[in-house]
Formats: sequence, structure tokens, C-alpha cells
Amino acid sequence: MKTIPHKIYLSENEMPRQYYNLRADMPKKPAPMLHPKTLKPVVAADLTPVFCKELVRQELDDTTRYFNIPREIRDFYKIFRPSPLIRAYGLENELNTPAKIYYKFEGNNTSGSHKLNSAAAQVYYARAEGVAALTTETGAGQWGTALAEACAHFGMPLTVYMVQGSYEQKPFRKTIMRTFGAEIIASPSNTTNIGREMLKKFPGTSGSLGCAISEAVEKAVSSENTRYVLGSVLNQVLLHQSIIGLEAEAAFNKIGDYPDVIVGCAGGGSNLGGLIAPFMRDKLLGRKDIDIVAVEPKSCPSLTRGQFTYDFCDTGHLTPLAKMYTLGSEFIPARDHAGGLRYHGMSPIVSQLYADGQLRAEAYKQTEVFEAATLFARVEQILPAPESAHAIKGAIEIAKKCRDNNQSKTILFGLSGTGNFDLSAYEQFQNGKMVDIIPTDADIARSLKTLPKV
Amino acid sequence: MKTIPHKIYLSENEMPRQYYNLRADMPKKPAPMLHPKTLKPVVAADLTPVFCKELVRQELDDTTRYFNIPREIRDFYKIFRPSPLIRAYGLENELNTPAKIYYKFEGNNTSGSHKLNSAAAQVYYARAEGVAALTTETGAGQWGTALAEACAHFGMPLTVYMVQGSYEQKPFRKTIMRTFGAEIIASPSNTTNIGREMLKKFPGTSGSLGCAISEAVEKAVSSENTRYVLGSVLNQVLLHQSIIGLEAEAAFNKIGDYPDVIVGCAGGGSNLGGLIAPFMRDKLLGRKDIDIVAVEPKSCPSLTRGQFTYDFCDTGHLTPLAKMYTLGSEFIPARDHAGGLRYHGMSPIVSQLYADGQLRAEAYKQTEVFEAATLFARVEQILPAPESAHAIKGAIEIAKKCRDNNQSKTILFGLSGTGNFDLSAYEQFQNGKMVDIIPTDADIARSLKTLPKV
Repeated sequence: MKTIPHKIYLSENEMPRQYYNLRADMPKKPAPMLHPKTLKPVVAADLTPVFCKELVRQELDDTTRYFNIPREIRDFYKIFRPSPLIRAYGLENELNTPAKIYYKFEGNNTSGSHKLNSAAAQVYYARAEGVAALTTETGAGQWGTALAEACAHFGMPLTVYMVQGSYEQKPFRKTIMRTFGAEIIASPSNTTNIGREMLKKFPGTSGSLGCAISEAVEKAVSSENTRYVLGSVLNQVLLHQSIIGLEAEAAFNKIGDYPDVIVGCAGGGSNLGGLIAPFMRDKLLGRKDIDIVAVEPKSCPSLTRGQFTYDFCDTGHLTPLAKMYTLGSEFIPARDHAGGLRYHGMSPIVSQLYADGQLRAEAYKQTEVFEAATLFARVEQILPAPESAHAIKGAIEIAKKCRDNNQSKTILFGLSGTGNFDLSAYEQFQNGKMVDIIPTDADIARSLKTLPKV
Repeated sequence: MKTIPHKIYLSENEMPRQYYNLRADMPKKPAPMLHPKTLKPVVAADLTPVFCKELVRQELDDTTRYFNIPREIRDFYKIFRPSPLIRAYGLENELNTPAKIYYKFEGNNTSGSHKLNSAAAQVYYARAEGVAALTTETGAGQWGTALAEACAHFGMPLTVYMVQGSYEQKPFRKTIMRTFGAEIIASPSNTTNIGREMLKKFPGTSGSLGCAISEAVEKAVSSENTRYVLGSVLNQVLLHQSIIGLEAEAAFNKIGDYPDVIVGCAGGGSNLGGLIAPFMRDKLLGRKDIDIVAVEPKSCPSLTRGQFTYDFCDTGHLTPLAKMYTLGSEFIPARDHAGGLRYHGMSPIVSQLYADGQLRAEAYKQTEVFEAATLFARVEQILPAPESAHAIKGAIEIAKKCRDNNQSKTILFGLSGTGNFDLSAYEQFQNGKMVDIIPTDADIARSLKTLPKV
């Protein structure tokens, strides 16, 4: 007799009313960002031309524990949240493990990932401050789709700079963003100085995320009452994503359980940081002893093989410097299908916690990650995003150890999104054409030479 | 103050334990199917070479009101059900209507549609009877995906004959079915007599659904202990799909409401028939007065412009004849993106109810349907399937009338699936390249000349 249901949903009344700011409980705070020119800690005045005021406040505040979630954001969350906490009975059975496996599934919305949580907040605050329009960039398209959805809800005009290569290869992502009313511009474009320069220098280029960021920022600061928004890495994004962990915590309360192990995939750190937030609080405050595991791809191993130091957040070197685990901003990860994990750095919050030994990290090859993803799809009936499948792989390995040692641990992992738009990667995997390219020590040493001197 | 939440979920304990067989309460039963050669009513012995025993029993039984849902199927339903009943606050607000609009959302699973409900049942019964393998055909791929998922769950080998054209144009559908372990064969193929004949006669053909059906049936009857399964039209499929309506009814009970109007899209009739089942019972038994509306595409108007008579269910004329509204089995619908609605006939149950005046029908052009779909996506944050968008269009028109007449009716419509795999159609719509092709009276008269003489 299964006493715990497959899916645990909170009622609307049980949904969190505050975001939790993990920085407030960190004994060692994340180091402040530095201005890219003066190399001095950034202050609000440096950020207000780019971000709206409330988001600047959230970005810089490392002492306020809780931020009220405005009613308008909570109303929006009610449309696509709460997300279910799912008991992975199928996976437990398949692995024949005494471990109890749960996952928090964030893919149950049209954008297909957790990104919508922060998009909702960022668009709302901009709307509340009277911002006239927003700009952003997108690579694979998840963030752009989430933002287009949130902008449709709040009635905010949006321009998305989409890397030219993706614009051509992922026409469906472009179409879905347009369905939600966003304007999509292939980057580099003629709409910005930096875009025009790039087109002149490199005619026929397929663009880069760095260039798209630069265009979106330039467009925002040069347009009337326009602001730029970003979907990961930033402290404000992890604050909004704490909704994932807070809902998971409330769901565990309902069923009278609590995780012994938490596993999340880590790219920029927004999903992991959000998932672990309230549990890490309990760990930092000495209330609980939890094993927290970040899983990254071997092709882009910022935590497991990077250096903890100040670096640029973007390849264009326009953004502030952040102290984080980094492979160097000029590190070019091998073509890996987990596009959301192909980032040279890591959220400063996650980085500091890792440096302090509060979480550990593991790296897996993408072929073994797709093997885990395929197994998961068959037994849990959800096609996972390649990014999320890193967490699945990590959780499976832990559940197998529990089987070998006969331990009935409670494992929680984050299933941050679905793989409906990643089927070309699944196809490569099925056809045996997927390869694992892992950077050599020399590769990493070379890109680390480009670190700024701070 | 909104007293009714956005989403109403049943708990696992509240999920239906029986399917409801609407035929048992129909004053005029659907006419029996006829054997394609003898033209006599089919009996169990005619069907058992093709379908497994329990499904034959369900197909032919028009008196038993309720069928217990076996525990194994209910356990599987717990993985992807209950589906939410959603209050369309965003749409109500956009339309400024006093009507209360609800929709039952069946797209919240990896296959993306309601088809998984019947796939679950059909695979379970085959497994329970010791059937060794299943075959089916798929065009656009929704049914094939749903069946592949159910087969992965129950450990049943599956061969899917996929229309050659779709096999090439929709490689992602093929990949997702393979992820779930199905074998996919492009039809026509060398694996059947009919396939080999077709390839000889028409080298380089892109295939047809009729041919794929024929290959799947031939493969099933000629292979050891193998059966064929079908995703719509059949009585057994509507029986399984009654889970949609039963859950909706239970959810309305929870919130103390009941629909005045029910709207569903109608292709083969499985989604509509399932959605309306318990409500139509209340109507037939004189307990409730409900306006029930089937919405179909103007390009394939079987209810609104077809004839109620015996016809073949397939273009290959291999299957039994069914008494239904039909445009003639050789009717070639104009290329319409709502692939699931491009069927010349209609479920005999839905057809009989329509003939008896128990439901009415409306037809819309696809451009106006996509306009409604786009509006819906922006205010409700779900990208609808083109098929489902027909129901949205129908519901919107009714809600507008409620506004004009200041009536606060309760409207329920079926959102049978998501449009994540239909983005090329959305792209055509956005680019103004979508056209509406509506058959002339002469077109329909011509194809009705091919009706069998019974």
C-alpha cells in the first residue's frame, strides 16, 4: 500500500508568499561584483541604467531574509504553479533501491522549464516601475520563451536578440516566442552599434551569446525607458527561484518527510540555487545534515575543474566581474546538447557555498547522461531536458549506492525542464553519433590565462 | 476575491475507479458495425483476430453501464493524471464576459494529448491476456507516442507503421517514440504484403494513413500472438476516454458548479465523446439541460455537411463498416494543420447523439482557429494543439454571446492537447501563409458517391 501519492501538489493557499534570500544566512557572503572598468564593488547607481530599481535592490541585498512576493506575481504563479513534487516510484522500482526518490518537476509549463519563475518576477517589477519595454538575449531559447510568456501576461513589449545560429536552426523557438507577442531579432543585427560592427568585421557570422548579450544591453541603455533582463547567474534570479525549494519544503512537510540528499544540475546555478535554498538554510543553521550535490557536464566542468576567482560574466567583457568558479570567460565548451549548462562560470552564491564545503560537485559525460534520460523517460513517462538529465544521472548513482549499502535515504532532485525541443540530441544519441569531448588540462589552463587581473 | 482556484486537481483517492459506458444510457443505441464482406453485424469472433478479448467485449457491449478500471491502469493513470480542470480567469478577463469558463487540460503528459488514456487501457488488457506484441499506425504521431509510452510502462513490444511522409517530415516524433522503446517502420514497407505491393506499384510514394493501417493490421494478424490497437472512433476508445468527463464531473462537484455548455473538438470523436460522457448521461436521463457543441474544421465537416449512413472506417476498406456521419471514405480533406481532425467519418456514438439532436455542431476555418489559439496562449499561458483550438474558438464565441446577453453561464471545454509539435503551423499563420480551403458541395457530393451500398 503506497501511502504517499505519486504527485504532491500544494493548494493555492499553501503556496509560498515570500522569496527566501539564502545570502542572509550564509556565514561567508558571496563577494561583491566589481565594476568592469574601475574594479570597485558595484553600487546601485552602476546597475540602474540596466536593471529596474527593485531588481537592483534585490541584487545587492545580502541581509534581508525574506522578500514578499507581490500579489500580481503570486496570481501569475497560480496559472502555472505550484509544480508537483513527484515520488519516482517507477525509477525506484527499476533501480530496486530502498531509497525514496522524489523530484520537483518544473517543466509543466509551456516554456518547458523553471526559467518562467524569475521571468514572472522580473517583468512584474519592470511593469510596476513603469518601464516601457524590455530586452534580452537567448541562445537555445528557453529563457526567451519564458520571458515572452511573462511579457504576454503583464502586457510588456519585449525584444529578444537570438543568436543567429539558433535563429536558423531552432525556428520553432522563434515561432513560439512570436506567438506570445515578442519581437525576435537575429544577432548580430543592424539595430545596434555592436551588431553593425560585428556584421562588418565578420560578414555571414552565425553570432554568439556574448554578442547577443551586448546587443540586448546596448539596446536597453540606448532606448527610452527600456531595461535589460537576464535569466541566470544573478543573485536576484536565485532569489526568485527559491520558490522551487520553498514549494518542495512545504510538500515534504505535508507528507512528513525531509531529504537526506539533494541533487541539481548546475549551469549558471539558478535551478540548483533555487531548489536548495531553504534546505541549505537548515544546513547552514545546523538544523539538518544534508548531502547537496551539483551535477555538471564533463564538457564544461566549472565547479570540478575551474578556479574560484573574479572573472567576467560574459565573453564580451561588458558586464561586472563576479567572484565565482570559472573556466575563464573565453573557454569554449565542446558542443554539448545541454545548452543551458554550457557556461564558463557559476552563480556567485553557489560558488561560495562550494568553496565553503557546503555542497559537492560531480561531472558526467553526456552519453551517460542521455542513457539515464532514456531510462527515466521509460519508467517515469517524462522526457527530460538534457540539462535536467544531469540531475537524474546524479540521483540514479546515489540511489544505486543506497541499494548496495541497503540505505533507505530520501533523495530529492530537480527536474528543471522537458526535452521536447531537444529531440535532435536524443536522435544523435539513439543513432550512436553522440560523442563526449572533454577539455584537457591544457585547454583549461589556456583559457584560465585570460582571467582579468584583479 | 477568487474563491475558486485556477486549477482544480482531484486527489488520488478521488480519481474515478470505473469507466462509464454512455451507450448503456442512450435511448437509441449506435447501429452495430457490419462485416466488410458479409455486411452482417460483426460478432466477437470477427474481431478477436485483430483485438484482444476484453477490448472486443467492451467494443460490443452497449448495456453495461460501468466497467471497473483495473488497479494496474489506475496506477499508471496516477503517473500522468488526474488532469487539472482549469478556470480560465485570463480568458474571461480578456473577453470581459460574465460567463465562467473552465477547461479540462489533457496535454500535461509527454505524449501531449488525451490519447494516452486509451493507450494505457489497451496495452494493459493486451498484456493481461498474454499478447506478445502490438502493432499500430500513426500519422502526425500523437497516437504513436502515447502508445509507445504505455508500452514502455507495461513492458510490451510495439511496432508503429508511420506514414512515410510524416516519417521524413516529423523526425522528432520518430525519435520520441524510439526513446520509449518502440520500433518505427516507414510505411509502405517491405515488412508486409500490402506494403510490398504498394512499393512495387508506386515507387517513391510518401504513403497514406490507409496504407499504414492496412500494414499494421496485416502485421498483427500474420504474427504470432500479436494484436492491433487503434486510438479513436471505436466504442472502446470512447469508453476509456470517459475518464476525462468523469474527472471533470468530480472536480465540478468539489467546487459546487456544473456546466451549462460543453464544447469539444471533434475528429474521430474520442476526445469529445470522453469529455461529455457523464454530462450527456445527465442530459439523456433528463436530470440536466446542457448545450453540447462539437466543433470541427470547415475543411473536413463530417457532422455539419456529411451524411449519416454506413461507410468504411478506412480508405483501404479493410475495416468493418460503421454507421456514422461521413463525407465518404475517399474524401480527401484539404491540407489542414489539425491533423487529428482530418478524418472523413465520426465515432458512431457521437454520430447517433448528433442524429438524435442531443448535441449540435459548428465548423470553423483554420485561420480563425489559429487566431483564437494565439489569443488563448497569451492569456492562459498554454500553447494549444490546433485540434484543441477548435474547441477554444467555439468556447470563445459562446462566451462572447454571454457577454452580449449578460448571461453568467458555466462553460466547459476540452483542451485535448498541446501544440509543441505544431509550430510549423503556427509559423505559417504568423507569416500570413495559412489558407482556408473549404470543400464545395460538388466535392462532397463526389466523394459521397463512393459510399458502400448497404
